[in-house]
Amino acid sequence: MKAAPECFICLLNQALRTARVTGLDQEQTKALLRQSCSYLATTDFERTPPEISEELYKLFSRQTGNQDPYYFLKRESIKKALELYPDLKKKVSEAADPLRTSLKISLAGNIIDFGAGAVADWARIESFLDPGNLEIDHYEWLKEDLKKARKIIFLGDNAGETVFDRLFLEQLEQKVIYAVREKPIINDATLEEAKLSRLEEVAKLVSSGCQAPGTVLQSCHPEFLSLLSEADLIIAKGQGNFECLEQERGPFYFLLKAKCEVVARYLGVKPGSLVITRSRNFIPKYHRS
Amino acid sequence: MKAAPECFICLLNQALRTARVTGLDQEQTKALLRQSCSYLATTDFERTPPEISEELYKLFSRQTGNQDPYYFLKRESIKKALELYPDLKKKVSEAADPLRTSLKISLAGNIIDFGAGAVADWARIESFLDPGNLEIDHYEWLKEDLKKARKIIFLGDNAGETVFDRLFLEQLEQKVIYAVREKPIINDATLEEAKLSRLEEVAKLVSSGCQAPGTVLQSCHPEFLSLLSEADLIIAKGQGNFECLEQERGPFYFLLKAKCEVVARYLGVKPGSLVITRSRNFIPKYHRS
Repeated sequence: MKAAPECFICLLNQALRTARVTGLDQEQTKALLRQSCSYLATTDFERTPPEISEELYKLFSRQTGNQDPYYFLKRESIKKALELYPDLKKKVSEAADPLRTSLKISLAGNIIDFGAGAVADWARIESFLDPGNLEIDHYEWLKEDLKKARKIIFLGDNAGETVFDRLFLEQLEQKVIYAVREKPIINDATLEEAKLSRLEEVAKLVSSGCQAPGTVLQSCHPEFLSLLSEADLIIAKGQGNFECLEQERGPFYFLLKAKCEVVARYLGVKPGSLVITRSRNFIPKYHRS
Repeated sequence: MKAAPECFICLLNQALRTARVTGLDQEQTKALLRQSCSYLATTDFERTPPEISEELYKLFSRQTGNQDPYYFLKRESIKKALELYPDLKKKVSEAADPLRTSLKISLAGNIIDFGAGAVADWARIESFLDPGNLEIDHYEWLKEDLKKARKIIFLGDNAGETVFDRLFLEQLEQKVIYAVREKPIINDATLEEAKLSRLEEVAKLVSSGCQAPGTVLQSCHPEFLSLLSEADLIIAKGQGNFECLEQERGPFYFLLKAKCEVVARYLGVKPGSLVITRSRNFIPKYHRS
């Protein structure tokens, strides 16, 4: 999915948010935004948003020397998610359909703002477990394809959310490959955060090789691309992975919250909607286009 | 008030909104945003937001040939406001304190979105007339100063809101000078819209000479600056006029909704708050600093 005009605003807003998270002063922030504008004015917008944003975050790191502005926020998110984990595990085991419940909790990880207290989070998870809340719901297809698949790859998204993904991974018979970003970008999980989330116990962790907040195939390790080509099923989590891969032909399912107007419009749902969707370009094996 | 880092985002958002209002296609919109980014990357941010935005709208007009992108929206706003006028006039005449009620309705004009239906608007005006809804309320001082003033200037803001201002102007014993923008900028009123709002019947209409969405003194007509210097009381409406004039020493009162985080923070109120505030630099006569 190519970037839309709205992405200019969103990307500039991300630069501002990153400046705030790291405590830049007003003048440093203005300087960062000036540089960000200069980059956005000239960069190729016929690309996906994660491709464009990768350079934006590098620009931030060059200006500030900070390679991982969301370091503490990522750790806090994982800590809070691990605190919720035992209760959620119980919820899954007691559910009428544990697989579906675990998938919904994994999706809930894509919506929870850990800035709010754990009680509020709980209330949001509870409301999320309501059956009528997926705007696109290809669960039955996914369930069937999961049964048939021998090699499964799960493309992770944010730190913290990783802990919620674990509940889903525990429901599967086979150990899946769980892929994360190569280097810190926003609050996306890298190998370090995946390990802190104790995903090693239930999945084979790999880095995709990609440094963007998504899975940009031309930036991935050749070894990772081999893994993708061998997979029978690829579950891609979050908006960034969706934006990068929805045009690809392969055994893709996308699990995400449509966080912005652009992606929501593209999916034909309201902003804020939660979806489990089989790729429009679904084929049982991955063929690089 | 100088522009803050958040103003980068807001200004770029304004460029996008203007593109949408005039129906530019995706490619034209992207081109406009690229140019806007290029402008924001290099322009002097040690200025007020209206000063920065003036050039942004000129850039839009140069690209599209459209000198007045909000032309139809302005007319629609005036039409709807004129429809509400008779009922509001009755409301004022029946009020315990007609002057205060008229001021509140004038302020309501700063919040009403005419996109919604008239019924919804009515509901919002009603809720607004509740006594406890001004976050800063210097009405009593304003009332006293109005009694003493012989020469009053009212600096207008948006088209449509102009009709609501009329109710206030009708409460005054003397005919005030009502100043508007020199040329179309966003949905701000020019002489044309002031006349369509029938303000000629209750005020002497003048153009400030300024083309920014506020009152930038160095862009004003010398004749208008003379009028300002002779005024005993200057009522400045809306955020743009506040941003331009809050540092000036003179007999200023500001009536506005704090529409953004930046102005709200500056005033020490929550975003969305409504205020009638005497200038922190209030002196009975205007002295250009």
